[in-house]
Amino acid sequence: MLRTHTCGELRPDHIGQTVTLTGWVQRTRDKGGILWIDLRDRYGLTQLALEEGVETEEVRAQARELGREFVLSVTGKVAERHSKNDKMPTGGIEIRVEKLEVLNAAKLPPFLIEDETDGGDDLRMKYRYLDLRRNPVRRNLELRHRVAQATRRFLDGQQFIEVETPVLIKSTPEGARDFVVPSRMNPGEFYALPQSPQTFKQLLMVSGFDRYFQIVKCFRDEDLRADRQPEFTQIDCEMSFVTQEDILNTFEKLVQYLFKEVKGLEIGELPRMTYADAMRYYGNDKPDTRFEMKFVELNDVVKGQGFPVFDAAGLVVGINAHNSAMYTRKQLDELTEFVKRPQVGATGLVYARVEADGSVKSSVDKFYAQDELQKWKAAFNAQPGDLLLILAGEPNKTRKALSELRLEMGQRMGLRDKDTFSPLWVVDFPLLEYIEEEGRYFAMHHPFTSPKPEDVALLDSPDTIGEVRANAYDMVINGVEVGGGSIRIHDRAVQARMFSLLGFSDEEAKAQFGFLLDAFEYGAPPHGGIAFGFDRLCSLFGGADSIRDFIAFPKNNSGRDVMIDSPSPISGAQLKELSIATAVEKK
Amino acid sequence: MLRTHTCGELRPDHIGQTVTLTGWVQRTRDKGGILWIDLRDRYGLTQLALEEGVETEEVRAQARELGREFVLSVTGKVAERHSKNDKMPTGGIEIRVEKLEVLNAAKLPPFLIEDETDGGDDLRMKYRYLDLRRNPVRRNLELRHRVAQATRRFLDGQQFIEVETPVLIKSTPEGARDFVVPSRMNPGEFYALPQSPQTFKQLLMVSGFDRYFQIVKCFRDEDLRADRQPEFTQIDCEMSFVTQEDILNTFEKLVQYLFKEVKGLEIGELPRMTYADAMRYYGNDKPDTRFEMKFVELNDVVKGQGFPVFDAAGLVVGINAHNSAMYTRKQLDELTEFVKRPQVGATGLVYARVEADGSVKSSVDKFYAQDELQKWKAAFNAQPGDLLLILAGEPNKTRKALSELRLEMGQRMGLRDKDTFSPLWVVDFPLLEYIEEEGRYFAMHHPFTSPKPEDVALLDSPDTIGEVRANAYDMVINGVEVGGGSIRIHDRAVQARMFSLLGFSDEEAKAQFGFLLDAFEYGAPPHGGIAFGFDRLCSLFGGADSIRDFIAFPKNNSGRDVMIDSPSPISGAQLKELSIATAVEKK
Repeated sequence: MLRTHTCGELRPDHIGQTVTLTGWVQRTRDKGGILWIDLRDRYGLTQLALEEGVETEEVRAQARELGREFVLSVTGKVAERHSKNDKMPTGGIEIRVEKLEVLNAAKLPPFLIEDETDGGDDLRMKYRYLDLRRNPVRRNLELRHRVAQATRRFLDGQQFIEVETPVLIKSTPEGARDFVVPSRMNPGEFYALPQSPQTFKQLLMVSGFDRYFQIVKCFRDEDLRADRQPEFTQIDCEMSFVTQEDILNTFEKLVQYLFKEVKGLEIGELPRMTYADAMRYYGNDKPDTRFEMKFVELNDVVKGQGFPVFDAAGLVVGINAHNSAMYTRKQLDELTEFVKRPQVGATGLVYARVEADGSVKSSVDKFYAQDELQKWKAAFNAQPGDLLLILAGEPNKTRKALSELRLEMGQRMGLRDKDTFSPLWVVDFPLLEYIEEEGRYFAMHHPFTSPKPEDVALLDSPDTIGEVRANAYDMVINGVEVGGGSIRIHDRAVQARMFSLLGFSDEEAKAQFGFLLDAFEYGAPPHGGIAFGFDRLCSLFGGADSIRDFIAFPKNNSGRDVMIDSPSPISGAQLKELSIATAVEKK
Repeated sequence: MLRTHTCGELRPDHIGQTVTLTGWVQRTRDKGGILWIDLRDRYGLTQLALEEGVETEEVRAQARELGREFVLSVTGKVAERHSKNDKMPTGGIEIRVEKLEVLNAAKLPPFLIEDETDGGDDLRMKYRYLDLRRNPVRRNLELRHRVAQATRRFLDGQQFIEVETPVLIKSTPEGARDFVVPSRMNPGEFYALPQSPQTFKQLLMVSGFDRYFQIVKCFRDEDLRADRQPEFTQIDCEMSFVTQEDILNTFEKLVQYLFKEVKGLEIGELPRMTYADAMRYYGNDKPDTRFEMKFVELNDVVKGQGFPVFDAAGLVVGINAHNSAMYTRKQLDELTEFVKRPQVGATGLVYARVEADGSVKSSVDKFYAQDELQKWKAAFNAQPGDLLLILAGEPNKTRKALSELRLEMGQRMGLRDKDTFSPLWVVDFPLLEYIEEEGRYFAMHHPFTSPKPEDVALLDSPDTIGEVRANAYDMVINGVEVGGGSIRIHDRAVQARMFSLLGFSDEEAKAQFGFLLDAFEYGAPPHGGIAFGFDRLCSLFGGADSIRDFIAFPKNNSGRDVMIDSPSPISGAQLKELSIATAVEKK
């Protein structure tokens, strides 16, 4: 190696040794007749010292020419540090420089390579290789590495085998949009990039692999939101001869292990909540359970008192924001504005305060006398100082809006601490959901999810089909769905029926999934699995909101990599060879 | 779990316990009043017994209906086995079946699910999920998993960080053909799938990641030969602040570790051979060194004796096949046919035998007297019983042909044992090679490889440019290149010059690799790396010739996955959305 030690390695024990370090110039200072240089590498920061009359004038002259981010090789003696710094692991020593070599010069970076940088998002993306030098960004990717290693260690210990499934597969109409790849050798035909290895992992179960996993790239050509990437990574898992209970237990242990290994935290047993309860109490199938603030339904309490908004509403429902009665008019107006945003979708907000004397003061006192308001207080089990926030309207929309308001209040009340983790299982999802615009049922999870045996009879009538529950489950942490899965269908007839319910003709089902239907005829075992969003899991562990911070080279919201300037046009010769043409005018 | 134990788990210690097993019916026999079933899962095989008058007639009736590959759940008592089988781990016990449930029936598989199967390649590919049930195929993928786990464990221990680089990148003209992906959001533009993460791993070095690795899918749209796949997997690695020596030492240790962990073998230190010696002694930059049989150059020995073929040849060169003088006329004719094949390319074969009395008998005795032939014998250091095989012609072609002959003889003489491993480093590759048809130099490794500092001056003259050696190295095992890499260029000016030597205009270089050239201006450290062909490494460990056996779902020679029938046409709506059209008539 061009170095004897890293920049994070030297301690007072090394004093007197001659060492060679390599790294980047973090900063230089000239103070009190001493030139100081902080040299940085992945492992840490080491202080170099060049003192007038001690170190040679030649090497001091060299040092004076250094700029930020120059790459150096430095040889010198480890010495006791002039002014010790207990906060730095190398804070007890410094290097008295005898020899200094510039391995590469550097232009002044377009933004500061510091924990807090002055670079905007776009600039940092264009120079991502410089952004990655910053400690917080590098630490995110180190964390990602540790989570991946720990995941593999755990699953390997549980006899899971990592099998690589293909990236060049086949386009399927169900689900999100596929990215496709024209085949040169098969003109007019296309591969697709996998949205997940779903069918392949099921085939591996048919093959008897028993326990499969893979940390694998998946691809969805969707319109990107802040927190979506066209390519993302899953921890993809499947097991044979299991019930839902076995899967929950196995992967609960995985997540406990990861929290312990990566965060040093014992998260304990994961509570379970039915989808129905999650919707009823949180208006959300991924409830943030770091705080309670459960929904309280008020139809029985508030109706028939002459307030037209409540009387006309399908659902009146509220939350109790403890100790928030001191909210000002301005703050309450902000909340009203918040719930009226199109993304939230409520028409207005009713609030009520419980005063110190136990009386209730509401924004609709005109319609409700104090004894009526005392019933509200009882329904919420509210105490003096509590603030009750109530929405009304069409039930589903109202629950959704109240869920947003609940999260907003949780945020405002400091109940959503990034270092607190509240994982749970949400179970008993509906099998199908009716999408109004499409006029048909869609698989809520995916078409391979099995119905609960006790609900199968409900599939027979169009009136009850929406009530069928699936053997499906999500793992939710802090309001984020980190993983989801199901017990799969392993019976050909059931799978064919499912395709038919989803509007596939027999021919379409055969053309798209014939291989899977065939496979089910040759001895498919009962099986099920789960997939975790790996980027999301890492961002959760890292306490960040965006998965982008945990991806080395992410794409922007237009799906572009602005650093390498991709996508880009390709040559006419390439197009011709692929037997395709672009059907757009180039701008 | 639906089972209490696996089919590989039960031992005489378990006798008397009631257990539940699940698995596939391997075979059934009815003999001596007992129905025998072999039940199989990934972990092994367990014998089930249903005896007349002991087990119930009801369960025996069920058992009689079972076919091959039915999926069962079986409950019963572990008993001492009727006839013990020491070769099976479970050979001491059997299960006396009390309850039997068919979890899924199976059609008769299209080929035998046995170690030796009757299924042809095409059939097995179409029903790959059944082929994967066979022990040898499953064991290959288990081995692959172990190699991957061990690789990660080793590199993690050496402070390498696994970083995922993007799959949707940018098409580049150098190298093999890219697979491309039309971008819906950027009409007329395309992503490309990476042939390797080369530039990204170099950028990670510029970012200070210091030690990077990734087990990563790569893609090349090349015409497929038996042993190539459009998607393949690399162990991709890069290190900063290193010399070639550091890289060789680090990855020699990785491969030693893998041999130890996966094969239980100590392979010792890897010898090093220059490219020049490899070509001189083996006619091949990936010599199979499991056996010697080095080339002996004979120009000085054989010329000027009136044999026109030798006199006219640029090179006369041969090998000594020890103890093969007993080769018959027919065998020698076969060898002559062999060297004349177009893939080998020689025009004829001269041979000579060393007789028991030390005299030499050659196929060109007409031109060479015995005292001349004795000089041949001396040149080859040949002993009685040896067979000398000699080719002549244009030097490069002749070396290549003799290399093929050497391998053929090694095969015939049993010197290429699959359980013997002879790894080595080949070093000092040329930087550039001139491709006659293209009329220009190409990078022998890739455009990012650095020249040896002592050879840089040779770049200045067109006469010596081909002599420049690179800081490039390959790891070769048993005649297979399992890995290759180089110390990279980290200086912008040198990199720009390299692009120019390779025929890039400044504009082209900037358009394609501007981000890398830019990155080199912001403090790029000296760095280098290596990539191992992971599929190839696994097939070598597994003793197989084809990488296809070590890929769960490989494609055929037309790049098709015949199981899922991909690639396939996509809908007009999909094409329109992607702003492309297919430029072929559909057949």
